[in-house]
Amino acid sequence: MLTLYSAPRTCALASHIALEQAGAHYEVVRLDFRANAQREPDYLAINPKGRVPALVTERGVITETPAILTFIAQSHPQARLAPLDDAFAFAQVQAFASFLCATVHPAHAHGVRGYRWADDPAAIEEMKRKAPQVMSDCFDLIERDMLAGPWVMGEAYSFCDPYLFTIAGWLEGHRLDIARWPKTADHFDRMSENPAVRRVLASHTAPV
Amino acid sequence: MLTLYSAPRTCALASHIALEQAGAHYEVVRLDFRANAQREPDYLAINPKGRVPALVTERGVITETPAILTFIAQSHPQARLAPLDDAFAFAQVQAFASFLCATVHPAHAHGVRGYRWADDPAAIEEMKRKAPQVMSDCFDLIERDMLAGPWVMGEAYSFCDPYLFTIAGWLEGHRLDIARWPKTADHFDRMSENPAVRRVLASHTAPV
Repeated sequence: MLTLYSAPRTCALASHIALEQAGAHYEVVRLDFRANAQREPDYLAINPKGRVPALVTERGVITETPAILTFIAQSHPQARLAPLDDAFAFAQVQAFASFLCATVHPAHAHGVRGYRWADDPAAIEEMKRKAPQVMSDCFDLIERDMLAGPWVMGEAYSFCDPYLFTIAGWLEGHRLDIARWPKTADHFDRMSENPAVRRVLASHTAPV
Repeated sequence: MLTLYSAPRTCALASHIALEQAGAHYEVVRLDFRANAQREPDYLAINPKGRVPALVTERGVITETPAILTFIAQSHPQARLAPLDDAFAFAQVQAFASFLCATVHPAHAHGVRGYRWADDPAAIEEMKRKAPQVMSDCFDLIERDMLAGPWVMGEAYSFCDPYLFTIAGWLEGHRLDIARWPKTADHFDRMSENPAVRRVLASHTAPV
């Protein structure tokens, strides 16, 4: 049994979808970020970073979305969530996940958690003001150079797809219309209709 | 033949060390960031992100440090740069690399490239002021919870080691004394003495 620590509207959604699509034996524990549950000692003992997602396995805890997605793909090879037998193709999947976690996710975080990098309220406000532009630049790059179509990696579905779906879902919060990026918008719509994604989203909107 | 696009004092150093330690057949092309060579059309055709590192392989280009390191490890298994046959251990390596690329590297970048997230000079200055504190918090976590010792993953050397060495080398620029983190400092010293690391550093200090 795997246990995923998650919270609504976080990048943990990508790992949740991957677990569901892999047919994994798992449960989800949802943390209440409004009550700052991710900073409680019980949770810090699981993930000292005080962030989600964290995946508890029988051998220990895995943190960081790219690592969790890779683990799910490697431990459920029949789900074909990554090209496990092709080092170059696997590197492309890793590169996309790295871009999302190291560039796009921080771009988003400047709009909602600027206090991580500045104390002065005016500086935090300035980051928030610019965040939609930085997110927009990221999605220009994704649309033009990364999203091969129909899936991120082309014909082969991979864990890049739920990861992109998750982060594309944050555009609206920056008042950015996903329709500006037609391939990304089409990808988002197709992902939204996937039965596993619908099951996961239904569980996310259910009461805690 | 692999070609690594690099620039001095960037995270590309980690990939360079890994190539050297893997015994890979490679060459390095150094971009002159002072001349903004990473934004020239010739380079954008290789990496549209305008960043380093980029690794040109016979099948195409790989970007993002965690992806390049994973590719080097998988395509040179005899170098044992990652636990390739153990999904859980491999996930731990990925998690560490993700933390460096998605949390520590952005923390550093706020000290030197704040313009990515704000236009107002006062906000950029405020990020720069706080950057050493954010970097310090990151290294507290690495020292206490991540660096198992003697290597990052414990007894087994992995590509996490040159990656940590690379980013720990940035502490001095934030006026942070690495001696505050004894395990990290010891790791840095041992890495500095590694013959492959010495060869790579010697090539970095040679004239372009």
